[in-house]
Amino acid sequence: MLPRLTDEFQVDDWAWLLESLTNEQRIIIWPQLEGKETSSILAAMRDDARQQFVSGISSKELSKALADSTAEEAIEVIDVLPQKVATRLIKRMTKETQAHIKANLNYDEDQVGRYANHDVYTIPTGLSVGELRAELKSNDLPDYTDSFLIVDEDNKLLGEITINELFSAEPEEGVMGLSHFPEQIIKAEDGLLDASNQLKNTNKSMLPVVTEHGELLGRFDVNDALIVFQQHYEEQIAHLGKVSDEDLFAPVLLSARRRAVWLGINLATAFLASFVIGVFDTVLAEVVALAVLMPIVASMGGITGSQTLTLTIRGLATGQLGDANISLLQNKELRVASLNGVLWAVLVAVLTGLWFENAMLSGVIAIALVVNMLVAALFGILIPVALDKLNIDPALAGSVILTTVTDVVGFFVFLGSASLVLI
Amino acid sequence: MLPRLTDEFQVDDWAWLLESLTNEQRIIIWPQLEGKETSSILAAMRDDARQQFVSGISSKELSKALADSTAEEAIEVIDVLPQKVATRLIKRMTKETQAHIKANLNYDEDQVGRYANHDVYTIPTGLSVGELRAELKSNDLPDYTDSFLIVDEDNKLLGEITINELFSAEPEEGVMGLSHFPEQIIKAEDGLLDASNQLKNTNKSMLPVVTEHGELLGRFDVNDALIVFQQHYEEQIAHLGKVSDEDLFAPVLLSARRRAVWLGINLATAFLASFVIGVFDTVLAEVVALAVLMPIVASMGGITGSQTLTLTIRGLATGQLGDANISLLQNKELRVASLNGVLWAVLVAVLTGLWFENAMLSGVIAIALVVNMLVAALFGILIPVALDKLNIDPALAGSVILTTVTDVVGFFVFLGSASLVLI
Repeated sequence: MLPRLTDEFQVDDWAWLLESLTNEQRIIIWPQLEGKETSSILAAMRDDARQQFVSGISSKELSKALADSTAEEAIEVIDVLPQKVATRLIKRMTKETQAHIKANLNYDEDQVGRYANHDVYTIPTGLSVGELRAELKSNDLPDYTDSFLIVDEDNKLLGEITINELFSAEPEEGVMGLSHFPEQIIKAEDGLLDASNQLKNTNKSMLPVVTEHGELLGRFDVNDALIVFQQHYEEQIAHLGKVSDEDLFAPVLLSARRRAVWLGINLATAFLASFVIGVFDTVLAEVVALAVLMPIVASMGGITGSQTLTLTIRGLATGQLGDANISLLQNKELRVASLNGVLWAVLVAVLTGLWFENAMLSGVIAIALVVNMLVAALFGILIPVALDKLNIDPALAGSVILTTVTDVVGFFVFLGSASLVLI
Repeated sequence: MLPRLTDEFQVDDWAWLLESLTNEQRIIIWPQLEGKETSSILAAMRDDARQQFVSGISSKELSKALADSTAEEAIEVIDVLPQKVATRLIKRMTKETQAHIKANLNYDEDQVGRYANHDVYTIPTGLSVGELRAELKSNDLPDYTDSFLIVDEDNKLLGEITINELFSAEPEEGVMGLSHFPEQIIKAEDGLLDASNQLKNTNKSMLPVVTEHGELLGRFDVNDALIVFQQHYEEQIAHLGKVSDEDLFAPVLLSARRRAVWLGINLATAFLASFVIGVFDTVLAEVVALAVLMPIVASMGGITGSQTLTLTIRGLATGQLGDANISLLQNKELRVASLNGVLWAVLVAVLTGLWFENAMLSGVIAIALVVNMLVAALFGILIPVALDKLNIDPALAGSVILTTVTDVVGFFVFLGSASLVLI
């Protein structure tokens, strides 16, 4: 029934296809995937799409789909499984796989240990190069293998030998003698993003993930790093759009509830701005032009602030911005804002003069623009720095707070100075 | 002079450090990098930071710093070099490196061919497994090598043999006989982002990059893919913040000029909204509460639209959203917007009633909110889809157009229905 195209579909393609369907369509199409690597496909789907889908099929179908799960796949999906299915899934696995899952679940969702891949080529200490080569004749290497890890009988990581070193060695040499302790390892309790950055900078295909007791938990490879980066950025972009990283066809009620959170926060800040405007109702009633022009002051401040905020958040995220250079950035951003403030204030003043033929009004809006753009640049730095010190992700809350500041300050300065000058 | 810490600095750490300094500081610190891999460090810096820095040091210093450039590094930096330095750099390179550079420069900045890495382990057709192994004894493998590429004397790609296959083979077998044509290759004219996605899905460490004539141009590895993804997302996030992906300490004038572009666009759209408000000056003068409340209508529409827009842009970017399911998404988003529209309209109507004790005003704002949030959801889909069909990146222009729509519609419906009902 599906177009021929899907004959060549790989795991990722199926996951992609399922994500692009509504949940009803997913359930209709699912039986066509019989015989495919269903456990890998489920593990490869976006969290939210998987969650919707899993809740839509029967426990029996789900158990069948997950029958061939690896430890890694089970860990990826287990959170959204009904208790009964999860228990049955774990029970049917080998003792070894069960142990792997247990070891990984000691770590949180944002720690590398949780996702450490147990598909590692490890070798015991006593092996010679010749014996290893003989072994490799009939053993496939896992993807992204550029070195072999040497462990003792307690699975403690002792060293590594790269493929390069293996090629250069003589058959009678002992592997242990040729090995060296890895220059870099990843600690199981490290954050996913830190580990990804670390791996990226080593130019290696994978690094060993090691517990606090020095035991080899598994590996973390460049493909893992790639997925971590992608998820991290996609989440950030979703939050900037005031939405969670949700399924394209999430159920209407669920979607509405999630988005309501952002709308509610926005409404509270919008009312705050309204109260500020309300303070100046006398001047607004006398000079209607103020009501006409006030969105300009607020929005120019908003854009200026957002520009500085974006740069500051990136600087904080890369660690390039700290106590040592924050005042330098502040200095620069204030100069940039002054230049643009004056430039656009002059233009807006001229246009206002032509429109309303009121020089005082031109003066008032010019002053309000310059002040609001300077305040915006200042808070574009102060807000994320403060949030960062409080351990709150500035990318999440920064723009909401900043817009509130630029709205409130913009309306206050514009209408406030108008009520001093114009009546 | 620099803290001891920097003794262990790698290329990426130096690039990171330089990026976090002002250009004056970079120039002061630069002599400390004597003897480090300066050409790699320059190539690893962000485009904009590198451009600032290069313009600040003398041609002589620059030539010295670039003396050991590989072909890949030269291609990365060449665009920002003074003509004289560029010519001298190329001239001093070996004929082979010069040919590599020339081959890559046949491709655009967003094509894989431009950045194809020539550090590939290639083997001639006649070699036996034993001879290859002997060769590998004294030759280092490039990073991210999981297969060897076989080329004929015209550098035409004939096949590959994986490291895995090499381990399993007998010494007397011919490499060519064991090889197979790579299941996946990257075409030199492919886009960088497409190539990165392709590589990610293969679970290989690298893929060969091949010209339209079937010649091996070089390779594209997972680290390249990682950098492509990172740059792509960082640029997108910068644009969402209405700023270009600029150097933290770009010169004030340059920075101000770049940001002025976004501010100018914003001002034009803000004036458009002001004109709409201006149409209703009579009702505004009579009912000041309208001026107090109108930002609420605009901003709730803005958030709703941005939520739908973000989801639509992601769907278009992943290719999961197309003609086949766009109306399904529209249907769903309109339902979500109706639910939230009614919910928040009721709340805002109640608050307005309590504040201004005017039931008609409550009714007007409730209607305006529902209409604006529905329009926002609709245009949150229509705008990016239209931009995408026009081959304009929806991530770049989408939010500006959408905000204009939600502002204009919000003010129009709110003030328009007020002038019908309230006077």
